[in-house]
Amino acid sequence: MAFDHQTSTTQDAAPMDDTPAKSHPLGPLCAQEIVQSANLVRRCWPEGTDCHFKVVTLLEPTKAELIPYLAAERAGRVPASIDRQAFVVYYLRRTHNLHEAIVNLTKNKVEANVKLGPFVHANGDGEEIVAVEKALLAHPDVQAEIAKLQLPEGAVVVADPWIYGSDGIKDGNFYDDKRVMQCFLYMRDPRNPFEPDSCHYAFPLPISPVVDPSTLELVRIDILPTGLDEKVKPLAPWQAVGPNEYIPEAQSLRANLKPLRIIQPEGVSFTVEAFSELGRLIKWQKWDLKVGFNQREGMVLYDVHYDGKPLFYRLSLSDMSIPYADPRHPFHRKAAFDLGDAGAGIMANNLKLGCDCLGSIYYIGGVLSDGEGKPVNMPNVICVHEQDAGILWKHTNYRTNRAVVVRNRELVLQTILTVSNYEYILSFVFNTAGDLAYEVRATGILSTQPLDHELTKTTHPYGTVVHPGVLGGFHQHFFSLRIDPMVAGHGNSVVYDEAVAIPRDPTRNPHGVGFTVRKTEVTTSGGYDLDPSKNRVFKIINPAVHNPVNGAAVGYKLMVPPMQTILADADSFHYRRAEFADHSIYVTRYADRELYSGGLYTNQSRGGTGVRSWADRKDNLAAGDPVVWVQFGINHIPRVEDFPVMPAETLRVMMRPVNFFDRNPSIDVPPSKQEVNCSVGLNQPGDGMDAKMDGLTLGGEVGKLSSSCASHGCA
Amino acid sequence: MAFDHQTSTTQDAAPMDDTPAKSHPLGPLCAQEIVQSANLVRRCWPEGTDCHFKVVTLLEPTKAELIPYLAAERAGRVPASIDRQAFVVYYLRRTHNLHEAIVNLTKNKVEANVKLGPFVHANGDGEEIVAVEKALLAHPDVQAEIAKLQLPEGAVVVADPWIYGSDGIKDGNFYDDKRVMQCFLYMRDPRNPFEPDSCHYAFPLPISPVVDPSTLELVRIDILPTGLDEKVKPLAPWQAVGPNEYIPEAQSLRANLKPLRIIQPEGVSFTVEAFSELGRLIKWQKWDLKVGFNQREGMVLYDVHYDGKPLFYRLSLSDMSIPYADPRHPFHRKAAFDLGDAGAGIMANNLKLGCDCLGSIYYIGGVLSDGEGKPVNMPNVICVHEQDAGILWKHTNYRTNRAVVVRNRELVLQTILTVSNYEYILSFVFNTAGDLAYEVRATGILSTQPLDHELTKTTHPYGTVVHPGVLGGFHQHFFSLRIDPMVAGHGNSVVYDEAVAIPRDPTRNPHGVGFTVRKTEVTTSGGYDLDPSKNRVFKIINPAVHNPVNGAAVGYKLMVPPMQTILADADSFHYRRAEFADHSIYVTRYADRELYSGGLYTNQSRGGTGVRSWADRKDNLAAGDPVVWVQFGINHIPRVEDFPVMPAETLRVMMRPVNFFDRNPSIDVPPSKQEVNCSVGLNQPGDGMDAKMDGLTLGGEVGKLSSSCASHGCA
Repeated sequence: MAFDHQTSTTQDAAPMDDTPAKSHPLGPLCAQEIVQSANLVRRCWPEGTDCHFKVVTLLEPTKAELIPYLAAERAGRVPASIDRQAFVVYYLRRTHNLHEAIVNLTKNKVEANVKLGPFVHANGDGEEIVAVEKALLAHPDVQAEIAKLQLPEGAVVVADPWIYGSDGIKDGNFYDDKRVMQCFLYMRDPRNPFEPDSCHYAFPLPISPVVDPSTLELVRIDILPTGLDEKVKPLAPWQAVGPNEYIPEAQSLRANLKPLRIIQPEGVSFTVEAFSELGRLIKWQKWDLKVGFNQREGMVLYDVHYDGKPLFYRLSLSDMSIPYADPRHPFHRKAAFDLGDAGAGIMANNLKLGCDCLGSIYYIGGVLSDGEGKPVNMPNVICVHEQDAGILWKHTNYRTNRAVVVRNRELVLQTILTVSNYEYILSFVFNTAGDLAYEVRATGILSTQPLDHELTKTTHPYGTVVHPGVLGGFHQHFFSLRIDPMVAGHGNSVVYDEAVAIPRDPTRNPHGVGFTVRKTEVTTSGGYDLDPSKNRVFKIINPAVHNPVNGAAVGYKLMVPPMQTILADADSFHYRRAEFADHSIYVTRYADRELYSGGLYTNQSRGGTGVRSWADRKDNLAAGDPVVWVQFGINHIPRVEDFPVMPAETLRVMMRPVNFFDRNPSIDVPPSKQEVNCSVGLNQPGDGMDAKMDGLTLGGEVGKLSSSCASHGCA
Repeated sequence: MAFDHQTSTTQDAAPMDDTPAKSHPLGPLCAQEIVQSANLVRRCWPEGTDCHFKVVTLLEPTKAELIPYLAAERAGRVPASIDRQAFVVYYLRRTHNLHEAIVNLTKNKVEANVKLGPFVHANGDGEEIVAVEKALLAHPDVQAEIAKLQLPEGAVVVADPWIYGSDGIKDGNFYDDKRVMQCFLYMRDPRNPFEPDSCHYAFPLPISPVVDPSTLELVRIDILPTGLDEKVKPLAPWQAVGPNEYIPEAQSLRANLKPLRIIQPEGVSFTVEAFSELGRLIKWQKWDLKVGFNQREGMVLYDVHYDGKPLFYRLSLSDMSIPYADPRHPFHRKAAFDLGDAGAGIMANNLKLGCDCLGSIYYIGGVLSDGEGKPVNMPNVICVHEQDAGILWKHTNYRTNRAVVVRNRELVLQTILTVSNYEYILSFVFNTAGDLAYEVRATGILSTQPLDHELTKTTHPYGTVVHPGVLGGFHQHFFSLRIDPMVAGHGNSVVYDEAVAIPRDPTRNPHGVGFTVRKTEVTTSGGYDLDPSKNRVFKIINPAVHNPVNGAAVGYKLMVPPMQTILADADSFHYRRAEFADHSIYVTRYADRELYSGGLYTNQSRGGTGVRSWADRKDNLAAGDPVVWVQFGINHIPRVEDFPVMPAETLRVMMRPVNFFDRNPSIDVPPSKQEVNCSVGLNQPGDGMDAKMDGLTLGGEVGKLSSSCASHGCA
């Protein structure tokens, strides 16, 4: 990971207007609130002080304030107004002096403004990485090292500035109390150097400059080990290797993939309303939820209800951590926290119609801040659309041969972030059966490193060779989903169920086949583990609300793919910083402003400020205000097939009702019908018996048959 | 589970014709071959002998015969012909005398014909369950028991005949060496008794007759325990309870789910050819595969290649087992093997256009046998269609802001079986990145049991109350997928990789962050376990074929959801019979006719004839002919939401290339484009910035906006 500068330029900033910001406490900061915040902060300093704004975002109200507000709003009463506040993080430019301010926008004043540190650093940003790349490539020391590689004439060198994972050691003259970037160098295909989208990851170079992004000074140049061990060899002439491009014009594209279109002739089944200038209220199939967008988490959901029943107070991806396996200097510092170190909001893609989502799509845009505290338009950062996801339920009565089939319609809210080489496609997915899933698709390009060419066909201890002389290092991805529940209201508990064999017993279990379910309540904050061998299932329940049919406490279960927890040892900085990566489930007692499982400041962090630390308070959870942090991930042992761009690895965490409703909540979804779906039968529609169709070859011709429901007015 | 009789009647049998069967050795038996087989078997017996045919199906050639045949065929040479053979299982009607015959159709003779037993029983069939239900409901002893319930006037009682799981004990006068059925009784909604699709599972009755399906004699009547323990109470008058219907006319249906259609204006991207009268060769996006269909496994894939490269010799769902948790007599016998006890082919649904699959669909039909040995047409048992599955890969170069997005197109081969109360939606799913998934969606209706009404709001040790007086018992579902691989040719090995932390070491791992991959070869047949805590990943590799980029042995990995293995103890009949349910992975050395992991005859089986037994040979796998059996499943702890029909629980096993190709195999898929996809932007297409859209409500009106690619000729 590193940064995506495109979104932080101001060229497409929203035009200012005179519309006052709506006062809803969950509305993302609008353009004039960003300007107001930055101006108020600047006024704390002598005129001419140059502030480099890192974050200017909504400071959400406390739960104590917000719960009554939302309750009044839902009841149709006028809520007591809550002051709008902004949370601002900034440097004094060209210094390491980091400050955090809280601005009361309603009262038009700065309520707090403190200097942070030591060992506290803000996220990187796109403005910086452009400047860092430019500065290091112009630096004579870097140029001198590059010269030793004797690159081909016309070669274009590029640099990916990277987060500098803390290690607590002095390296050269540098101790990691200052913010720096480690930069990885690559080259475009030297035979095609003017192609700006050449995949430079096929040409990694063994030189890694370390640069101070505040001063743009070169701190040090590290040379990468390129063998099987930690030894660093003298730089030697580059050995020629062919390109490995992902752009379509470099491929011989398949010609036979026919169009497949999603048509919604009567429009979509959802509605969108503005609950603030930028906040959106979405209603779909009994669901209603508020969508916000901020610099760090990107998409955030609030106040999620189904059929008027409260389910989730707040949902967001809290953080992620990607520690690498290579223990050799300087690779041991590759450990990115893409939300805390960069930001899922500021790195969000401008989604394109007909590419990133199909069907009829509603786009939500955002407004964030640039380094000057000016608003940046972020168009199309969330796409909202419906999709068909196969059969939801079916039953055929064999006595009458009558089948009832209901298809699974889903509503998808998708956002995509690019962090230098890599992309994450992040979605909340709702269905008509009360399920809510959080999906991650990990794609993009491996962060590669150079390898001695003669080792190309040797098994490497820390990576997979994906191209001659190119290693894709092993790494882990940990995603941390924060669930602040209100299942059937506030006052929830977390329990887990396990399936347990009953001991053989002449009366109770004479045939040895019995098993039952054992329930355990999570009474203390802490880290908890999945255990598929026990069918351990975590549930969020409301002990005060009982199912009308069977009297069980109503609940939602968490269906979480199990993962190997962090492999870095407990004394390592990777482990200490990734406070969430050692357990699939953390449960803490809610506290205001505990939103980010890796801590508020992850860049070059040293641990002690995230969910593990909060859980270590051993809070009693009987008070009924748990926050559940769900970790899931991928051990990425790269394949050759993951290069030059990787097919997505997909993970889903499901939140599914358990004894929450009184029956199948999708029982009232209209059954699937040809009159509505207008499918096309390619052979003998309505019969399909093709025993006589010897030698038949189907294709475009048959596919063009009109559907059997054409008479019903279908396309 | 039980049976579906609709498909085994002869009313829609294929008309006979004079076309000779094609001689391809993998072609499913065609109608005249079924007739020929039955006639040849009957001729082994005195005239007038009444045979009850249970299975008349293709006996596939041995691997030694078939490999050269397929190789010649693919090379365009004329293969040496292989005799067509049928495998026939039949009873002498109204007896328990079970016979197995092998018929050589080419030579027109019976090559083997043996009587089986003891403790060997054939599958049930639809003809039987209709007869059993009718016989037991007419039996005065059953009527006398029902009378004790004092059911409402006009009540209609129905019975679900069920497989009688072996227990090896004498029960009454019956020792389970004879084939019987245990039957569960229900009632239609007594206030609506003329509705044949009333969900009778909401009205379970505590009476369970045991019936001999051969003689239709009543063996015994069991009374069900309805409390918390094993005690059986005297039958008492039925207590009124309301219905719980799944049919749409009993619901107040949602009115606001708008149509969503899949349109393929240029037809589909696949072709279908007949490789025999009933066998189908499908080609799609570099994949080619042969599809067969038989009584037991339903859909079978053969000779699967990608881009001309061999991958899988044979793939099918081998069996499933569904042991129940309730240890009380007679529930302890609920353990169904829906493939071996019934048949995924003979129970397959006739899929309906516009309901079970969307888009442009090719249907494959089958021909099976009825009890008389007459062919039964099975129309539309497999649907073949393409679907969009979101983004397959994406990368944005932040320097140029150019994004390349490729969507994930999938080809789905889907079949659905109904086994009395329950349905399984089974699919093979191919994609453009060389992935092949096997997907199971478990849906349908819980097999319910009666509960004392006063216990409705009490926690039950063996089930969940899903309706007043109705218990949905806990159970496990184990699916066993048989993979006979030929990854890059025959001579494969099975290995597993684990991610292993490297011990902290001042030279090798000074910061404690290092990890590596440890490979273990499976050298001996046996049962093996997943271990997510080690990131253990099983792979099928070809040790003789090396990746051209990195020299690794080419392979496919198995991505298997971990499960809790069978909870019944190792001495229980459930465990002994479900020979596959104790390990996620079994590896055996290939042997002809070892196709079914629970054994060839599962009905009232006693174990000792399935994959556990074969693995216990401790075969050396160095010979390079492994068969991999992948088990996955669900511990079904029912929810109220699973009634009256359950939203599908979905599981996927993925087979994914690992160092098989030389780069991302989907790199040549054309990028996603609006000109092709014709999506509809609901707000300001191409911009999406909606900061000014205060109070906007979207819906049908906006959804009707024409797409921005209308000028390109899109709908």
